[in-house]
Amino acid sequence: MDCKVYLAGPEVFLPDAAALGAQKKDLCERYGFTGLFPFDTEGGAVPIGDRADRAIYRANVALMRDADCAIVNLTSFRGPSADVGSVFELGMMVGLGKPVFGYSNTTTDLLSRVRQTGSVLFNDEDRVWRDQYGMRVEDFGNADNLMIDACLAEQGHPLVRVNVADGELYRDLRGFEECLRLTAKELLTAAAPVSNRREDRA
Amino acid sequence: MDCKVYLAGPEVFLPDAAALGAQKKDLCERYGFTGLFPFDTEGGAVPIGDRADRAIYRANVALMRDADCAIVNLTSFRGPSADVGSVFELGMMVGLGKPVFGYSNTTTDLLSRVRQTGSVLFNDEDRVWRDQYGMRVEDFGNADNLMIDACLAEQGHPLVRVNVADGELYRDLRGFEECLRLTAKELLTAAAPVSNRREDRA
Repeated sequence: MDCKVYLAGPEVFLPDAAALGAQKKDLCERYGFTGLFPFDTEGGAVPIGDRADRAIYRANVALMRDADCAIVNLTSFRGPSADVGSVFELGMMVGLGKPVFGYSNTTTDLLSRVRQTGSVLFNDEDRVWRDQYGMRVEDFGNADNLMIDACLAEQGHPLVRVNVADGELYRDLRGFEECLRLTAKELLTAAAPVSNRREDRA
Repeated sequence: MDCKVYLAGPEVFLPDAAALGAQKKDLCERYGFTGLFPFDTEGGAVPIGDRADRAIYRANVALMRDADCAIVNLTSFRGPSADVGSVFELGMMVGLGKPVFGYSNTTTDLLSRVRQTGSVLFNDEDRVWRDQYGMRVEDFGNADNLMIDACLAEQGHPLVRVNVADGELYRDLRGFEECLRLTAKELLTAAAPVSNRREDRA
Protein backbone atom coordinates (compact mmCIF):
# COMPACT_ATOMS: atom_id res chain seq x y z
CA MET A 1 0.00 0.00 0.00
CA ASP A 2 1.32 3.43 -0.94
CA CYS A 3 0.74 5.65 2.07
CA LYS A 4 0.95 9.38 1.27
CA VAL A 5 1.94 11.97 3.87
CA TYR A 6 1.16 15.67 3.32
CA LEU A 7 4.15 17.69 4.53
CA ALA A 8 2.85 20.98 5.95
CA GLY A 9 5.13 23.65 7.40
CA PRO A 10 6.59 27.13 6.97
CA GLU A 11 9.75 25.73 5.33
CA VAL A 12 8.06 26.41 1.98
CA PHE A 13 9.18 30.01 2.60
CA LEU A 14 12.90 29.13 2.89
CA PRO A 15 15.16 30.21 0.00
CA ASP A 16 16.09 26.51 -0.42
CA ALA A 17 12.57 25.18 0.15
CA ALA A 18 12.87 22.56 -2.61
CA ALA A 19 16.04 21.08 -1.05
CA LEU A 20 14.44 20.95 2.40
CA GLY A 21 11.38 19.30 0.86
CA ALA A 22 13.62 16.72 -0.86
CA GLN A 23 15.18 15.90 2.52
CA LYS A 24 11.74 15.41 4.06
CA LYS A 25 10.62 13.20 1.18
CA ASP A 26 13.78 11.08 1.48
CA LEU A 27 13.05 10.54 5.16
CA CYS A 28 9.45 9.62 4.31
CA GLU A 29 10.69 6.94 1.93
CA ARG A 30 12.99 5.53 4.58
CA TYR A 31 9.92 5.00 6.81
CA GLY A 32 7.80 3.51 4.04
CA PHE A 33 5.85 6.62 2.99
CA THR A 34 5.50 8.89 -0.02
CA GLY A 35 5.86 12.53 1.02
CA LEU A 36 3.76 15.21 -0.68
CA PHE A 37 5.53 18.58 -0.36
CA PRO A 38 3.31 21.56 -1.22
CA PHE A 39 6.15 23.68 -2.64
CA ASP A 40 6.70 21.13 -5.41
CA THR A 41 3.47 22.15 -7.10
CA GLU A 42 4.10 25.90 -6.78
CA GLY A 43 6.38 26.10 -9.82
CA GLY A 44 3.57 25.03 -12.13
CA ALA A 45 2.22 27.39 -14.79
CA VAL A 46 -0.62 29.60 -13.61
CA PRO A 47 -3.55 29.49 -16.04
CA ILE A 48 -4.06 32.80 -17.90
CA GLY A 49 -6.41 35.04 -15.97
CA ASP A 50 -5.82 33.10 -12.76
CA ARG A 51 -4.00 34.38 -9.66
CA ALA A 52 -0.87 32.56 -8.44
CA ASP A 53 -2.15 32.45 -4.84
CA ARG A 54 -5.46 30.88 -5.86
CA ALA A 55 -3.64 28.31 -8.04
CA ILE A 56 -1.33 27.39 -5.12
CA TYR A 57 -4.32 27.07 -2.79
CA ARG A 58 -6.09 24.68 -5.17
CA ALA A 59 -2.93 22.62 -5.70
CA ASN A 60 -2.40 22.31 -1.92
CA VAL A 61 -6.02 21.33 -1.35
CA ALA A 62 -5.72 18.67 -4.07
CA LEU A 63 -2.58 17.28 -2.37
CA MET A 64 -4.37 17.18 1.00
CA ARG A 65 -7.34 15.33 -0.48
CA ASP A 66 -4.92 12.86 -2.07
CA ALA A 67 -2.90 12.33 1.15
CA ASP A 68 -3.64 9.65 3.75
CA CYS A 69 -2.35 11.77 6.63
CA ALA A 70 -0.28 14.87 7.41
CA ILE A 71 2.81 15.74 9.42
CA VAL A 72 2.68 19.42 10.31
CA ASN A 73 5.61 21.63 11.36
CA LEU A 74 4.07 23.73 14.15
CA THR A 75 7.22 25.62 15.17
CA SER A 76 6.34 29.18 16.21
CA PHE A 77 6.62 31.51 13.24
CA ARG A 78 6.78 35.35 13.24
CA GLY A 79 5.16 35.51 16.66
CA PRO A 80 4.33 33.22 19.57
CA SER A 81 2.22 30.79 17.51
CA ALA A 82 2.63 28.45 14.55
CA ASP A 83 2.43 29.44 10.88
CA VAL A 84 -1.27 30.04 10.10
CA GLY A 85 -0.99 28.42 6.67
CA SER A 86 0.16 25.18 8.31
CA VAL A 87 -2.52 25.48 11.01
CA PHE A 88 -5.20 25.93 8.34
CA GLU A 89 -3.97 22.70 6.76
CA LEU A 90 -3.93 20.91 10.12
CA GLY A 91 -7.57 21.87 10.63
CA MET A 92 -8.53 20.94 7.08
CA MET A 93 -7.01 17.45 7.42
CA VAL A 94 -8.90 16.95 10.71
CA GLY A 95 -12.10 18.06 8.96
CA LEU A 96 -11.36 15.55 6.20
CA GLY A 97 -11.13 12.86 8.90
CA LYS A 98 -7.46 12.05 8.31
CA PRO A 99 -4.75 11.36 10.94
CA VAL A 100 -2.51 14.34 11.69
CA PHE A 101 0.87 14.43 13.43
CA GLY A 102 2.68 17.57 14.54
CA TYR A 103 6.00 18.79 15.87
CA SER A 104 7.55 22.01 17.08
CA ASN A 105 11.24 22.86 17.05
CA THR A 106 10.90 24.63 20.38
CA THR A 107 10.11 23.15 23.78
CA THR A 108 8.77 26.38 25.32
CA ASP A 109 5.06 26.66 25.98
CA LEU A 110 2.68 29.24 24.54
CA LEU A 111 2.43 31.31 27.72
CA SER A 112 6.20 31.71 28.07
CA ARG A 113 6.48 32.83 24.44
CA VAL A 114 3.64 35.35 24.79
CA ARG A 115 5.27 36.61 28.01
CA GLN A 116 8.49 37.21 26.06
CA THR A 117 6.60 39.83 24.03
CA GLY A 118 6.57 41.84 27.27
CA SER A 119 2.94 42.91 27.23
CA VAL A 120 1.42 40.33 29.55
CA LEU A 121 0.36 40.75 33.18
CA PHE A 122 -0.82 38.28 35.81
CA ASN A 123 -4.18 39.25 37.30
CA ASP A 124 -4.19 38.23 40.97
CA GLU A 125 -7.95 38.46 41.24
CA ASP A 126 -8.93 35.79 38.71
CA ARG A 127 -5.42 34.26 38.55
CA VAL A 128 -5.25 34.69 34.78
CA TRP A 129 -2.50 36.03 32.48
CA ARG A 130 -3.82 38.82 30.26
CA ASP A 131 -2.30 40.78 27.36
CA GLN A 132 -2.52 44.54 26.67
CA TYR A 133 -6.10 44.12 25.41
CA GLY A 134 -7.07 42.28 28.61
CA MET A 135 -7.26 39.08 26.59
CA ARG A 136 -6.55 35.86 28.45
CA VAL A 137 -3.41 33.92 27.58
CA GLU A 138 -4.00 30.17 27.74
CA ASP A 139 -2.03 28.51 30.55
CA PHE A 140 -2.35 24.77 29.92
CA GLY A 141 1.38 24.15 29.41
CA ASN A 142 0.57 23.53 25.74
CA ALA A 143 2.91 24.32 22.86
CA ASP A 144 0.21 26.49 21.26
CA ASN A 145 -3.50 27.29 21.23
CA LEU A 146 -5.48 24.41 22.76
CA MET A 147 -7.19 23.56 19.48
CA ILE A 148 -3.78 22.62 18.06
CA ASP A 149 -2.41 20.61 21.00
CA ALA A 150 -5.71 18.94 21.82
CA CYS A 151 -6.47 17.79 18.27
CA LEU A 152 -3.17 15.87 18.26
CA ALA A 153 -3.59 14.57 21.81
CA GLU A 154 -7.15 13.41 21.03
CA GLN A 155 -5.72 11.33 18.17
CA GLY A 156 -3.42 9.63 20.69
CA HIS A 157 -0.11 11.23 19.69
CA PRO A 158 0.62 14.56 21.42
CA LEU A 159 2.56 17.33 19.68
CA VAL A 160 6.28 16.42 19.54
CA ARG A 161 8.53 19.18 20.95
CA VAL A 162 12.29 19.29 20.40
CA ASN A 163 14.84 21.90 21.35
CA VAL A 164 16.99 23.07 18.43
CA ALA A 165 19.55 25.84 17.85
CA ASP A 166 17.98 29.11 16.65
CA GLY A 167 19.74 28.88 13.28
CA GLU A 168 18.17 25.46 12.72
CA LEU A 169 14.68 26.47 13.79
CA TYR A 170 13.09 25.77 10.40
CA ARG A 171 15.60 23.14 9.23
CA ASP A 172 16.12 20.63 12.05
CA LEU A 173 14.27 17.40 11.20
CA ARG A 174 14.49 15.39 14.45
CA GLY A 175 10.94 16.31 15.47
CA PHE A 176 9.77 15.53 11.96
CA GLU A 177 11.48 12.13 12.10
CA GLU A 178 9.86 11.37 15.45
CA CYS A 179 6.50 12.09 13.80
CA LEU A 180 7.42 9.69 10.99
CA ARG A 181 8.08 7.00 13.61
CA LEU A 182 4.67 7.64 15.18
CA THR A 183 3.00 7.65 11.77
CA ALA A 184 4.65 4.34 10.83
CA LYS A 185 3.64 2.79 14.15
CA GLU A 186 0.00 3.81 13.72
CA LEU A 187 -0.60 3.65 9.99
CA LEU A 188 1.70 0.93 8.70
CA THR A 189 0.95 -1.44 11.58
CA ALA A 190 -2.75 -0.90 11.01
CA ALA A 191 -2.22 -1.49 7.29
CA ALA A 192 -0.41 -4.82 7.73
CA PRO A 193 -3.56 -6.95 7.98
CA VAL A 194 -4.61 -5.63 4.54
CA SER A 195 -1.69 -7.33 2.77
CA ASN A 196 -2.33 -10.42 4.90
CA ARG A 197 -5.88 -10.46 3.69
CA ARG A 198 -4.67 -10.13 0.11
CA GLU A 199 -2.55 -13.25 0.64
CA ASP A 200 -5.55 -15.02 2.13
CA ARG A 201 -7.49 -14.30 -1.04
CA ALA A 202 -4.67 -15.52 -3.30
CA MET B 1 -35.05 26.09 8.44
CA ASP B 2 -32.80 26.77 11.42
CA CYS B 3 -29.43 27.78 10.02
CA LYS B 4 -26.60 27.58 12.58
CA VAL B 5 -23.49 29.74 12.32
CA TYR B 6 -20.33 28.82 14.23
CA LEU B 7 -18.78 32.03 15.60
CA ALA B 8 -15.00 31.63 15.60
CA GLY B 9 -12.64 34.34 16.80
CA PRO B 10 -10.17 35.42 19.47
CA GLU B 11 -12.87 37.35 21.36
CA VAL B 12 -13.30 34.23 23.51
CA PHE B 13 -10.18 35.54 25.31
CA LEU B 14 -11.76 38.91 26.24
CA PRO B 15 -12.63 39.44 29.93
CA ASP B 16 -16.23 40.02 28.80
CA ALA B 17 -16.28 37.23 26.20
CA ALA B 18 -19.79 36.12 27.13
CA ALA B 19 -21.21 39.62 26.57
CA LEU B 20 -19.46 39.95 23.20
CA GLY B 21 -20.78 36.52 22.25
CA ALA B 22 -24.31 37.58 23.23
CA GLN B 23 -23.97 40.62 20.93
CA LYS B 24 -22.87 38.38 18.06
CA LYS B 25 -25.73 35.96 18.67
CA ASP B 26 -28.25 38.84 18.75
CA LEU B 27 -26.95 40.03 15.38
CA CYS B 28 -27.22 36.48 14.04
CA GLU B 29 -30.86 36.35 15.02
CA ARG B 30 -31.53 39.66 13.31
CA TYR B 31 -30.28 38.10 10.04
CA GLY B 32 -32.24 34.86 10.50
CA PHE B 33 -29.50 32.67 12.01
CA THR B 34 -28.72 30.90 15.26
CA GLY B 35 -25.21 31.75 16.43
CA LEU B 36 -23.09 29.10 18.16
CA PHE B 37 -20.46 30.82 20.32
CA PRO B 38 -17.67 28.47 21.51
CA PHE B 39 -17.16 30.27 24.83
CA ASP B 40 -20.71 29.35 25.90
CA THR B 41 -19.73 25.69 26.30
CA GLU B 42 -16.51 26.44 28.20
CA GLY B 43 -18.25 26.94 31.55
CA GLY B 44 -19.43 23.33 31.58
CA ALA B 45 -18.17 20.88 34.19
CA VAL B 46 -15.03 19.00 33.18
CA PRO B 47 -15.44 15.24 33.71
CA ILE B 48 -13.23 13.88 36.54
CA GLY B 49 -9.84 12.85 35.19
CA ASP B 50 -10.30 14.92 32.03
CA ARG B 51 -8.33 18.04 31.12
CA ALA B 52 -10.17 21.34 30.63
CA ASP B 53 -8.40 22.03 27.31
CA ARG B 54 -9.38 18.64 25.87
CA ALA B 55 -12.98 19.12 27.03
CA ILE B 56 -13.11 22.57 25.37
CA TYR B 57 -11.66 21.11 22.16
CA ARG B 58 -14.29 18.39 22.02
CA ALA B 59 -17.10 20.87 22.75
CA ASN B 60 -15.89 23.18 19.96
CA VAL B 61 -15.59 20.32 17.49
CA ALA B 62 -19.13 19.21 18.37
CA LEU B 63 -20.41 22.77 17.74
CA MET B 64 -18.61 22.89 14.37
CA ARG B 65 -20.10 19.56 13.32
CA ASP B 66 -23.53 20.87 14.32
CA ALA B 67 -23.11 24.19 12.50
CA ASP B 68 -24.15 24.84 8.89
CA CYS B 69 -21.40 27.40 8.30
CA ALA B 70 -18.90 29.60 10.13
CA ILE B 71 -18.07 33.29 10.37
CA VAL B 72 -14.45 33.65 11.46
CA ASN B 73 -12.82 36.71 13.01
CA LEU B 74 -9.41 36.78 11.28
CA THR B 75 -8.13 40.03 12.80
CA SER B 76 -4.36 39.80 13.38
CA PHE B 77 -3.68 38.60 16.92
CA ARG B 78 -0.39 38.76 18.89
CA GLY B 79 1.61 39.06 15.68
CA PRO B 80 1.08 39.74 11.99
CA SER B 81 -1.39 36.87 11.44
CA ALA B 82 -4.78 35.76 12.70
CA ASP B 83 -5.44 33.76 15.88
CA VAL B 84 -4.32 30.18 15.18
CA GLY B 85 -7.27 28.71 17.10
CA SER B 86 -9.67 30.49 14.75
CA VAL B 87 -7.59 29.51 11.70
CA PHE B 88 -7.67 25.85 12.79
CA GLU B 89 -11.46 26.12 12.92
CA LEU B 90 -11.59 27.82 9.51
CA GLY B 91 -9.61 24.91 8.03
CA MET B 92 -11.69 22.32 9.85
CA MET B 93 -14.97 23.76 8.52
CA VAL B 94 -13.53 23.77 4.98
CA GLY B 95 -12.51 20.14 5.48
CA LEU B 96 -16.05 19.38 6.64
CA GLY B 97 -17.29 20.90 3.36
CA LYS B 98 -19.17 23.78 4.99
CA PRO B 99 -19.33 27.43 3.82
CA VAL B 100 -16.98 29.78 5.68
CA PHE B 101 -17.00 33.57 5.86
CA GLY B 102 -14.25 35.72 7.34
CA TYR B 103 -13.45 39.27 8.36
CA SER B 104 -10.53 41.23 9.70
CA ASN B 105 -10.74 44.43 11.72
CA THR B 106 -7.68 45.80 9.94
CA THR B 107 -7.32 46.79 6.29
CA THR B 108 -3.53 46.41 6.16
CA ASP B 109 -2.07 43.52 4.20
CA LEU B 110 0.16 40.75 5.56
CA LEU B 111 3.38 42.12 4.06
CA SER B 112 2.93 45.55 5.60
CA ARG B 113 2.28 44.04 9.03
CA VAL B 114 5.32 41.76 8.82
CA ARG B 115 7.38 44.78 7.70
CA GLN B 116 6.28 46.60 10.85
CA THR B 117 8.16 44.01 12.89
CA GLY B 118 11.31 45.58 11.41
CA SER B 119 13.13 42.41 10.41
CA VAL B 120 12.25 42.23 6.73
CA LEU B 121 14.43 43.11 3.73
CA PHE B 122 13.72 43.38 0.02
CA ASN B 123 16.03 41.19 -2.05
CA ASP B 124 16.67 43.00 -5.36
CA GLU B 125 17.93 39.86 -7.08
CA ASP B 126 14.79 37.73 -6.89
CA ARG B 127 12.52 40.70 -6.00
CA VAL B 128 11.25 38.97 -2.88
CA TRP B 129 10.75 40.24 0.70
CA ARG B 130 12.55 38.03 3.21
CA ASP B 131 12.66 37.92 7.03
CA GLN B 132 15.69 37.40 9.33
CA TYR B 133 15.66 33.66 8.52
CA GLY B 134 15.67 34.40 4.79
CA MET B 135 12.08 33.22 4.64
CA ARG B 136 9.90 34.73 1.95
CA VAL B 137 7.05 37.01 2.98
CA GLU B 138 4.01 36.55 0.74
CA ASP B 139 3.27 39.63 -1.36
CA PHE B 140 -0.15 39.02 -2.88
CA GLY B 141 -1.85 41.99 -1.20
CA ASN B 142 -3.75 39.48 0.92
CA ALA B 143 -4.90 40.09 4.48
CA ASP B 144 -3.02 36.97 5.64
CA ASN B 145 -1.40 33.73 4.45
CA LEU B 146 -2.75 32.75 1.03
CA MET B 147 -4.48 29.63 2.36
CA ILE B 148 -6.74 31.89 4.41
CA ASP B 149 -7.57 34.52 1.79
CA ALA B 150 -7.84 32.04 -1.08
CA CYS B 151 -10.16 29.63 0.72
CA LEU B 152 -12.66 32.47 1.19
CA ALA B 153 -12.17 33.85 -2.33
CA GLU B 154 -12.63 30.37 -3.82
CA GLN B 155 -16.00 30.17 -2.08
CA GLY B 156 -16.98 33.41 -3.83
CA HIS B 157 -16.85 35.80 -0.87
CA PRO B 158 -13.39 37.31 -0.21
CA LEU B 159 -12.24 38.17 3.30
CA VAL B 160 -14.02 41.32 4.54
CA ARG B 161 -11.58 43.98 5.79
CA VAL B 162 -12.66 46.97 7.86
CA ASN B 163 -10.63 49.68 9.54
CA VAL B 164 -11.41 50.12 13.24
CA ALA B 165 -9.88 52.07 16.14
CA ASP B 166 -7.17 50.13 18.00
CA GLY B 167 -9.23 50.00 21.20
CA GLU B 168 -12.07 48.33 19.25
CA LEU B 169 -9.84 45.81 17.43
CA TYR B 170 -11.51 42.76 18.99
CA ARG B 171 -14.90 44.34 19.63
CA ASP B 172 -16.03 46.17 16.50
CA LEU B 173 -18.74 44.13 14.76
CA ARG B 174 -19.12 45.91 11.38
CA GLY B 175 -17.00 43.33 9.54
CA PHE B 176 -18.90 40.58 11.32
CA GLU B 177 -22.21 42.11 10.27
CA GLU B 178 -21.04 42.37 6.65
CA CYS B 179 -20.29 38.63 6.83
CA LEU B 180 -23.80 38.02 8.14
CA ARG B 181 -25.19 39.90 5.12
CA LEU B 182 -23.09 37.70 2.79
CA THR B 183 -24.14 34.56 4.66
CA ALA B 184 -27.81 35.49 4.44
CA LYS B 185 -27.50 36.27 0.72
CA GLU B 186 -25.89 32.91 -0.02
CA LEU B 187 -27.47 30.53 2.46
CA LEU B 188 -30.96 31.90 3.07
CA THR B 189 -31.56 32.72 -0.61
CA ALA B 190 -30.45 29.22 -1.56
CA ALA B 191 -32.82 27.85 1.08
CA ALA B 192 -35.84 29.73 -0.28
CA PRO B 193 -36.69 27.20 -3.03
CA VAL B 194 -36.98 24.52 -0.32
CA SER B 195 -39.98 26.22 1.25
CA ASN B 196 -41.38 26.82 -2.24
CA ARG B 197 -41.09 23.13 -2.96
CA ARG B 198 -42.82 22.39 0.31
CA GLU B 199 -45.74 24.55 -0.86
CA ASP B 200 -45.75 22.79 -4.21
CA ARG B 201 -46.11 19.50 -2.43
CA ALA B 202 -48.95 20.75 -0.21
